[in-house]
Amino acid sequence: MKIGILGTGAVGQTIGAALIAKGHEVMLGSRTAGNEKANNWATTNGTKASNGTFADAAKFGELIFICLNGSVTPVALQQAGAENFNDKVVIDVTNPLDFSHGMPPSLLPQYCNTYSLGEEVQKLLHDAKVVKGLNTVTANLMVNATLVNNADHNLFICGNDADAKNAVRKLLAENFNWKPENILDFGDIKSARLTEAIVPFWVGAMQVLGTPMFNYLIVK
Amino acid sequence: MKIGILGTGAVGQTIGAALIAKGHEVMLGSRTAGNEKANNWATTNGTKASNGTFADAAKFGELIFICLNGSVTPVALQQAGAENFNDKVVIDVTNPLDFSHGMPPSLLPQYCNTYSLGEEVQKLLHDAKVVKGLNTVTANLMVNATLVNNADHNLFICGNDADAKNAVRKLLAENFNWKPENILDFGDIKSARLTEAIVPFWVGAMQVLGTPMFNYLIVK
Repeated sequence: MKIGILGTGAVGQTIGAALIAKGHEVMLGSRTAGNEKANNWATTNGTKASNGTFADAAKFGELIFICLNGSVTPVALQQAGAENFNDKVVIDVTNPLDFSHGMPPSLLPQYCNTYSLGEEVQKLLHDAKVVKGLNTVTANLMVNATLVNNADHNLFICGNDADAKNAVRKLLAENFNWKPENILDFGDIKSARLTEAIVPFWVGAMQVLGTPMFNYLIVK
Repeated sequence: MKIGILGTGAVGQTIGAALIAKGHEVMLGSRTAGNEKANNWATTNGTKASNGTFADAAKFGELIFICLNGSVTPVALQQAGAENFNDKVVIDVTNPLDFSHGMPPSLLPQYCNTYSLGEEVQKLLHDAKVVKGLNTVTANLMVNATLVNNADHNLFICGNDADAKNAVRKLLAENFNWKPENILDFGDIKSARLTEAIVPFWVGAMQVLGTPMFNYLIVK
């Protein structure tokens, strides 16, 4: 599968490398073509790895991951061109974190409580099938669920398109070792308000536990 | 021990009954003396149960639980008289939930993201030792942790006074079957921002799971 990834930070690079290891072709997109981090990543990840602009990566992908900093996401999506996402499944991994008040972060006020970045992404990419997910765990765990508790822990997804959510569940199971039954569907994209709002708590928990390599298992 | 509980809803009644079952004396406080729910509760819970105003319950308690609706908490604490809480351990179980936009709730905007109701409670009860806790689980689970997964799941507390947090941990272990090692200390009362913000997510999870009888187990 051809997969586009917007964002060249740890999350984008980690997801990209993991997908290449599974046989997919991946293009990392950044603000400007020839971005040094993206060049290095493409060089070290073999012939199935490439890089380009946000628009290049969006055009390239049959499926697209958004792995940008929350604060730059709306501008980056405008640069990428909404039409390049039409009818595609888009996995929104972003979090609208605001580190300007120190640690742990708060949420950016414009994407907080009664609105979310996930909703903004769906609004900007009006004809894409946006699925919010993976944003509640650290990058290395995103791509290999077995690193914690034999993959017995939960992921929370939401989005307006049921088929797209099923496709994401399948992709995460086949490529990243997530157990399908542990991926909980929280409903439409409005639920991004809920799943983004637990991320400041996650950072606090990371500070308490002394490691980012943990997750929540819902027990009954 | 003499324990005061502010609030006569399901949370206050459930905590009160559980503490009486463990041999404590409990007074439920409400806005007006002779509140019908509080009268009924006191009548059905034996000689160690009583009821009165918010101020009566605060004066009565050597330790005080706040089990009020978030929206009325500041006014109720003013009615109770801050001086009646001085030097006492106060367990703040409140959540600043806003149901005016439907389900799941959002947070009241004034206690959201960069502030919290826990901080407001500590500010209003300046000389009390406020510990935020129990606000992330349903009432029946608060008072008997063994109802879920053999008590293997987590509670999150925070507050400015280390001794008060230790006292709360001990109280929850001795009376409500919480395993002390499962009660995670998130630091000072500012962390109420984190532990209140996961409650809308909890409501969403309850809707997905079809039961309020669940909790999170952090796995590594």
